[in-house]
Amino acid sequence: MPVNGLSINLATVREQYNMRQAVDACLRQDIVAIAPWRDQVHAIGLAEASRIVAENGLKVTGLCRGGMFPAGNPAARATAIDDNRKAIDEAAALNADCLVLVVGGLPVGSRNIAEAREMVADGIAQILPHARSAGIPLAIEPLHPMYAADRACVNTLEQALDICDLLGDGIGVAIDVYHVWWDPKLEQQISRAGAAGRILAHHICDWLVPTTDLLLDRGMMGDGVIDLRGIRRSIEAAGYHGAQEVEIFSAGNWWKQPGEQVLSTCVERFRSVC
Amino acid sequence: MPVNGLSINLATVREQYNMRQAVDACLRQDIVAIAPWRDQVHAIGLAEASRIVAENGLKVTGLCRGGMFPAGNPAARATAIDDNRKAIDEAAALNADCLVLVVGGLPVGSRNIAEAREMVADGIAQILPHARSAGIPLAIEPLHPMYAADRACVNTLEQALDICDLLGDGIGVAIDVYHVWWDPKLEQQISRAGAAGRILAHHICDWLVPTTDLLLDRGMMGDGVIDLRGIRRSIEAAGYHGAQEVEIFSAGNWWKQPGEQVLSTCVERFRSVC
Repeated sequence: MPVNGLSINLATVREQYNMRQAVDACLRQDIVAIAPWRDQVHAIGLAEASRIVAENGLKVTGLCRGGMFPAGNPAARATAIDDNRKAIDEAAALNADCLVLVVGGLPVGSRNIAEAREMVADGIAQILPHARSAGIPLAIEPLHPMYAADRACVNTLEQALDICDLLGDGIGVAIDVYHVWWDPKLEQQISRAGAAGRILAHHICDWLVPTTDLLLDRGMMGDGVIDLRGIRRSIEAAGYHGAQEVEIFSAGNWWKQPGEQVLSTCVERFRSVC
Repeated sequence: MPVNGLSINLATVREQYNMRQAVDACLRQDIVAIAPWRDQVHAIGLAEASRIVAENGLKVTGLCRGGMFPAGNPAARATAIDDNRKAIDEAAALNADCLVLVVGGLPVGSRNIAEAREMVADGIAQILPHARSAGIPLAIEPLHPMYAADRACVNTLEQALDICDLLGDGIGVAIDVYHVWWDPKLEQQISRAGAAGRILAHHICDWLVPTTDLLLDRGMMGDGVIDLRGIRRSIEAAGYHGAQEVEIFSAGNWWKQPGEQVLSTCVERFRSVC
């Protein structure tokens, strides 16, 4: 019996497995939905990755990631646009539900976050026609404000949805509880996203107290303070009933555990606390 | 000649000096405005601290800190209320411009941030009459969302101002660039705060890239990515012309430097980049 409603973002077991091994390990636990990262796809080749997905009838809840639009000069911004078009093609080859966009932070040396945000909106606008024709929805993932400088200058759901409204069809949001759980406007903006049909992905993990590293200390569901069930209820009430995708970066703990144990814990916690 | 417009939050040199020593060191550099923490006041005694302030004609741009309202049981919440009333009295004895509120995060074991936020609004409402009669404005300091769980569940200026609007007079906000620089609604909400006469303090430091610790890795102005001049312009355009108060928690760097060097660097950077 497949574990319905659960997807594994393969970053969760990136230290243990390549994509092929990760898929095998997921299938052994009846997990039939995944979300790979592009470097994991490239490591085994896009053709092989696509074959693995197709032959096993896997659902791909997203490809991570496009984005990283801001840069200090036009050539670098153009390179990012080209790379995003390739990412769209890869997402299409993998039959992914969406391409997740981590939009990028400040160009090196810049203190102008407003300008970086303009570069993001401009970059997405440039790739959107290609995404539409490829049938790949773009999912802006608002990242926690602690990543505003170096990873993503889109930091709230409200801000992401404002960009979506600007750009029209073919674009929505990936809601990762780790990034948005703290937001006083979370419920309101989830409703807004749902009403506009813009919820494209729902990522889960947990916020640990204390958190010892800004990037690589995410917790397993249930080990932290996020009201996972409450957020899930809001997202479902807003009309989204896709899979919950587990995405855990954990250099000190889960990346050091055997992959099978990580995946079985994901299944158990998905059933007990999500 | 006093360094006009600069205040030193004494946490910036808390590892080097007690309050008496810190004031002496500030005066040697013509810094005539400070903001002490309560533990620093208690360590030398409130009477002595007040005497030091009065005799030297120091401006006290704020007392840090009241708050910490949420708790798992009514008795603990009542204890917090009592302690906040004492903090108001101490602020009055020091002739402080405001009492800064770090409102508190989730009670231990709780995942209900909405409830914690209600406890905050309720707690502030309970101490506000005492603050008004003591003539001490309460300054809600929205803290960066990375502190939502364990320090403050008020995480944006918009949210803080909504609470202010609920509660009426005698309450406003402390705007610390470290906590709010990333906010896409920052300029809008600074204008709102200024129009309502609610800007009570302006704290400065910088956001380092990378940031290696969630709490104790703040940067000196100019060493990070915050547009300090831009935010200052917004705050002044909103009608606030009080001092910029330097507050740097830096276990790995500034807390290890000689206090005099830290203070002289604050003066230099205040003049060159703020």
